[in-house]
Amino acid sequence: MVGTDQIAAAQAALQQQTIELPSWAFGNSGTRFKVFAQAGVPRDPFEKIADAAQVHRYTGVAPRVSLHIPWDLVDDFGALARHAEDQGVRIGMINSNVFQDDDFMLGSLAHPDPRVRAKAVDHHKQCIDVMRATGSKDLKIWLSDGLNYPGQDSIRARQDRIAEALAEIYAALDDDQHLVLEYKFFEPAFYVTDVPDWGTSLLHVMALGDRAKVVLDTGHHAPGTNIEFVVAQLLRQGRLGAFDFNSRFYADDDLMVGAADPFQLFRIMHEIVSAGAHAPDSGVNFMLDQCHNIEPKIPAQIRSVMNVQEATAKALLVDAEALAAAQRGGDVLGAHAVLMDAYDTDVRPLVAQVREQMGLEPNPVAAYAASGYAEKIVSERVGGAQAGWGA
Amino acid sequence: MVGTDQIAAAQAALQQQTIELPSWAFGNSGTRFKVFAQAGVPRDPFEKIADAAQVHRYTGVAPRVSLHIPWDLVDDFGALARHAEDQGVRIGMINSNVFQDDDFMLGSLAHPDPRVRAKAVDHHKQCIDVMRATGSKDLKIWLSDGLNYPGQDSIRARQDRIAEALAEIYAALDDDQHLVLEYKFFEPAFYVTDVPDWGTSLLHVMALGDRAKVVLDTGHHAPGTNIEFVVAQLLRQGRLGAFDFNSRFYADDDLMVGAADPFQLFRIMHEIVSAGAHAPDSGVNFMLDQCHNIEPKIPAQIRSVMNVQEATAKALLVDAEALAAAQRGGDVLGAHAVLMDAYDTDVRPLVAQVREQMGLEPNPVAAYAASGYAEKIVSERVGGAQAGWGA
Amino acid sequence: MVGTDQIAAAQAALQQQTIELPSWAFGNSGTRFKVFAQAGVPRDPFEKIADAAQVHRYTGVAPRVSLHIPWDLVDDFGALARHAEDQGVRIGMINSNVFQDDDFMLGSLAHPDPRVRAKAVDHHKQCIDVMRATGSKDLKIWLSDGLNYPGQDSIRARQDRIAEALAEIYAALDDDQHLVLEYKFFEPAFYVTDVPDWGTSLLHVMALGDRAKVVLDTGHHAPGTNIEFVVAQLLRQGRLGAFDFNSRFYADDDLMVGAADPFQLFRIMHEIVSAGAHAPDSGVNFMLDQCHNIEPKIPAQIRSVMNVQEATAKALLVDAEALAAAQRGGDVLGAHAVLMDAYDTDVRPLVAQVREQMGLEPNPVAAYAASGYAEKIVSERVGGAQAGWGA
Amino acid sequence: MVGTDQIAAAQAALQQQTIELPSWAFGNSGTRFKVFAQAGVPRDPFEKIADAAQVHRYTGVAPRVSLHIPWDLVDDFGALARHAEDQGVRIGMINSNVFQDDDFMLGSLAHPDPRVRAKAVDHHKQCIDVMRATGSKDLKIWLSDGLNYPGQDSIRARQDRIAEALAEIYAALDDDQHLVLEYKFFEPAFYVTDVPDWGTSLLHVMALGDRAKVVLDTGHHAPGTNIEFVVAQLLRQGRLGAFDFNSRFYADDDLMVGAADPFQLFRIMHEIVSAGAHAPDSGVNFMLDQCHNIEPKIPAQIRSVMNVQEATAKALLVDAEALAAAQRGGDVLGAHAVLMDAYDTDVRPLVAQVREQMGLEPNPVAAYAASGYAEKIVSERVGGAQAGWGA
Repeated sequence: MVGTDQIAAAQAALQQQTIELPSWAFGNSGTRFKVFAQAGVPRDPFEKIADAAQVHRYTGVAPRVSLHIPWDLVDDFGALARHAEDQGVRIGMINSNVFQDDDFMLGSLAHPDPRVRAKAVDHHKQCIDVMRATGSKDLKIWLSDGLNYPGQDSIRARQDRIAEALAEIYAALDDDQHLVLEYKFFEPAFYVTDVPDWGTSLLHVMALGDRAKVVLDTGHHAPGTNIEFVVAQLLRQGRLGAFDFNSRFYADDDLMVGAADPFQLFRIMHEIVSAGAHAPDSGVNFMLDQCHNIEPKIPAQIRSVMNVQEATAKALLVDAEALAAAQRGGDVLGAHAVLMDAYDTDVRPLVAQVREQMGLEPNPVAAYAASGYAEKIVSERVGGAQAGWGA
Repeated sequence: MVGTDQIAAAQAALQQQTIELPSWAFGNSGTRFKVFAQAGVPRDPFEKIADAAQVHRYTGVAPRVSLHIPWDLVDDFGALARHAEDQGVRIGMINSNVFQDDDFMLGSLAHPDPRVRAKAVDHHKQCIDVMRATGSKDLKIWLSDGLNYPGQDSIRARQDRIAEALAEIYAALDDDQHLVLEYKFFEPAFYVTDVPDWGTSLLHVMALGDRAKVVLDTGHHAPGTNIEFVVAQLLRQGRLGAFDFNSRFYADDDLMVGAADPFQLFRIMHEIVSAGAHAPDSGVNFMLDQCHNIEPKIPAQIRSVMNVQEATAKALLVDAEALAAAQRGGDVLGAHAVLMDAYDTDVRPLVAQVREQMGLEPNPVAAYAASGYAEKIVSERVGGAQAGWGA
Repeated sequence: MVGTDQIAAAQAALQQQTIELPSWAFGNSGTRFKVFAQAGVPRDPFEKIADAAQVHRYTGVAPRVSLHIPWDLVDDFGALARHAEDQGVRIGMINSNVFQDDDFMLGSLAHPDPRVRAKAVDHHKQCIDVMRATGSKDLKIWLSDGLNYPGQDSIRARQDRIAEALAEIYAALDDDQHLVLEYKFFEPAFYVTDVPDWGTSLLHVMALGDRAKVVLDTGHHAPGTNIEFVVAQLLRQGRLGAFDFNSRFYADDDLMVGAADPFQLFRIMHEIVSAGAHAPDSGVNFMLDQCHNIEPKIPAQIRSVMNVQEATAKALLVDAEALAAAQRGGDVLGAHAVLMDAYDTDVRPLVAQVREQMGLEPNPVAAYAASGYAEKIVSERVGGAQAGWGA
Repeated sequence: MVGTDQIAAAQAALQQQTIELPSWAFGNSGTRFKVFAQAGVPRDPFEKIADAAQVHRYTGVAPRVSLHIPWDLVDDFGALARHAEDQGVRIGMINSNVFQDDDFMLGSLAHPDPRVRAKAVDHHKQCIDVMRATGSKDLKIWLSDGLNYPGQDSIRARQDRIAEALAEIYAALDDDQHLVLEYKFFEPAFYVTDVPDWGTSLLHVMALGDRAKVVLDTGHHAPGTNIEFVVAQLLRQGRLGAFDFNSRFYADDDLMVGAADPFQLFRIMHEIVSAGAHAPDSGVNFMLDQCHNIEPKIPAQIRSVMNVQEATAKALLVDAEALAAAQRGGDVLGAHAVLMDAYDTDVRPLVAQVREQMGLEPNPVAAYAASGYAEKIVSERVGGAQAGWGA
């Protein structure tokens, strides 16, 4: 059984845990078939940050907001950073976007045309400027580069071009700035994705230097991939830089984290907790990267933060000593049972208590619903263009 | 070896084969991340039909164009049908669209709200009116209905609602009109798709009556599904109504048919040819259902038609007698070798000869390129809004 | 919150629930690479039943044992049935085996050679004799028939042969006997599986008659298949005859049920409970079909039974009224939350109480471990050949 | 069009290409359900080599035979090597086997028990002794190590143990010997495979030194993985050490190479030819790794060698200059068409000519069938135990 000491330690760890929110989760999103608009959705980056701050207000563990450039371009990033501080949050990672300009139809950093590659590199330098203006220390790169048809371009030449372009971007960083490179199995390209797996991402960041690391997004793997294994591998190399939470049934569904396979989320958090990577000083930036296509966005983000907390709480309750003993002894069922004991525990009361310890309401969903904020933004945000993936 | 009689018979069959084109393949399309616009793309249904007619002009086997309602709504469908005839083609199947109206965010025929279901049924009645106005005899239904989250709605109740709504639509058909129901493994819904597999579609059409059949789209299956097996099953039940060609590496990529796995396409055509279902009177409507996101649309359709022809030609060259003998004798390698002999044959000269027999240029890609049509539409189609998935 | 009435009702239902055990789970099993032998494993069907009875002794809900013919062939089936009764259990379904005789290398009911098909039909008649001798009422058929290479045999002719052979087997059944037909996505054949999906199985049993139904095995689907959807479909058709529990990460892993994806198991049980199909008179036979390759077999079966009980308990705790209201109202997050509330509950105390209500120890794993049975069989079962998949 | 120079160059390259054969392909194999025995199958390593030599006799490009220890253990490896030379072939790679001893149930190099790890390391030292005795220069390691259940062992600790054990094995190699490490997505373990992907294998061999490289087996990837991309990556790192050919529809089916997806095989060979890695001095050892469960083994190996030759021939016919020009110009359809032109070519006459240039019969399948060897081994190999995966 779990002792009171372990519970207290778990609660202390949960108070320290932070989860970054993506500004784009508060805008409209959808599939290639349709983007359904929701009432009250933000019309500019300031409103997105205001919505993100609501999530932090009720959960207490979501103090940072990732920006996406150019979606979050503003004239005065200093003002945006101050606005965030006024709302009780701050700017997190800066995400580049090299997939929506017409020039990038056949790629960005991997494009056969040097002019297009230079343009894509320049965009990243602009992102670095935004980092300087907002105090962000992390540049996050996801490349949609790839091929739709066999023969369309040289698989190998594209790797060389990416390596060269990344080196130029890395060189433009300040000494206290970092670069993280995301990988994704497929989409939007169909035949080849130029950075499709953790191995490719890792080779590129190892070639860059110590301030370059890998981003693991839970939705970016082939069917059947053991994600906790990848987590373990990247931690073992000291190269897990950031973690994008979401969940999926089939492709990169970007559903709320924990909604599709809560046991997988627990196994991932067990791997992270086992390595101490949940600690604030681990250098791993945990964030949500989700789309709320049919559900209200602020409550969906609140629920997602809670899901991560609950999975972390269960991982913190694993009896590590009993587990190690059973593993050493080759006791397959015994070791499995130790893990499942933690998973089967209902940790909702424990996490509610953490919130009370932090001076928050125990039930963030109810507290947000009671606040009237949802109604307020619906009535106030009239006119203007709602934010979305293309705006 | 293949005798001259078999070659002559194959060529006769290839002259009879027809492949329907989708109007929407000529408009802009893309992924959830970006729709890249192409110069010269049609701005209305008349221009789409003009482009489709180009494909027929150079291949000689693509005489029909499927419409998508409301994308192809016009004031005067009689005029559109006459325009098609002027261009040497005619209107094919009418495709309904119940996935882009805001009311359909949580479903159409399966929606929990009876008002929304009635609206979706009404849309299909409107499509039947278009059929009457254009002379089309086939209503094609693909439902995007589904769920993103466990618990969101009752899986079973949704089947009942779909059955009830389909019955109402079927009852609205004229006696010489048909209904075909498409299935799709996933997308745009992530957790449940309400008509996800051939079994579900088949049960629904069997409940409707003899004029209801199943649509098989090659991109709408789980990874690893044996599509030729499904073809055989549906033909055995007499319920294969239509066939959507395209190709895929991962999801429903909608790439050019034959581009991802030409051997699979050959195996499918072998199954079809074995059952005589390639014949014009088989009742199976073969069409393309593709998106040309990064490649020019008219040449991509021409190439796709050629790919189907070549796969069909190879299937027609299979030595059926030798195959059956080896199969009966349990000669695994021998039977496989008979099939591969046909597949390994270079049938491009044979198909080029078919075109010459039909009074066409042997190389449709080159003939189209030489025609100047591509340059003409780029210069002429200035102003107006290009057609796309949302227009 | 869950009221005491609902808890009492759930506990009553859990007392009624039964789970059939497979005799073969107590023998040695493995992969194509190696079967690792375990000490104390049964050497004949009598010992297998003795072991199965241990699982029932400590769980109270596993009163039947499936036999596999010829693995469980004995001279006197009456004696075997009496032995079962002496141990407190009885004989359940009879499983045929047409995949291990050399004659079946290229198929059984689908084989091109009529002599082999007749032999396979005869084997099923022998199984029906075993049913008569043991009082079993259910014949369970899983066909390994399929093809490894394209062209090897006619996909369609094989369907016709299977249909004909099944009709002959069905005709041999007594009026109070049933036939259930299993489907499986792949393995042991690689290219075609002749009964690969629920649609194929359903078409065959519909052609046979009312006493023929489908078997759903949770490990027999393509990656990403929504199994609760298939459950709902088969229940809607009144054709879900039996349910094989196990779990999988990649292929048909046959791991302990609930070990790989406990949330999926809960969703499946929710679908079953929603339709009342967990009730003893529902006509659905729930059983385990697992292999314990590296873990001790009796405790693994006990753990599996517990996992099914816990998933069922959670499904019974779903607030059906609140769920339906949220679903009707299109409240995506609310409906999802109702389902998750039940899943997040720790039901282990509730199920332990059920055991106490039934006069059993609350912890079956501990009770079995304390019994000394494991040590006893290791010391007593010396000499003889251990049972396995081939014996 | 392809010029005569290019054809001559292709034929010269095809004469130089060699494909290694696995001794185990000539023994009986099967699935976990059944190993079907075939008449005439070898009873010892000498007979396996005799059969392999038949494949070389008729194809001219299969001069080496891989051994598997302990399956191919003999008292006098010098005698075995001389026997191979007498038959016109020689010993190739030495494959270790740490998955069939009872001690390895929970792993070998990754096992929690240091005694078992030491035993597994010792086995590899024995394999190195076999290398010295036979003149083989390559040690090939595939680990079946993994976990079936979450919690069973520490994912990360197992990586550390593997790294330590591999270092000990690598240190035991002579200076002119090499080590290649294979990866595999899943099977026989279900939950975790300890070396599941190219990234893991690459990290281990990079840690070892220059004489350690990666083995790519075409059947060892997640569904949808782009294998030619992995080929390009490993070649780019200079770490592709060996290539295991076979083909698959679902899992690691180990079917004849090119039987399931000949276009994929062509794309892989295109990537290899583009990098010059098909040349004899490239340092990449190409071999077959297949199981012939239901088809005769020698003809199946002959067919497989032919399939590799034909795919290589097509790759050699790609118009590299036209392809590069189209790629540079962003001509998606044009570049794709250049690749497809080569693929669509019937290269069987070209390869038959290569055989005649080498003094062989143009049709190896027919020549072998006419030789009477198949009948001879059936009549002569009576008594003794046939070789298989376990013998």
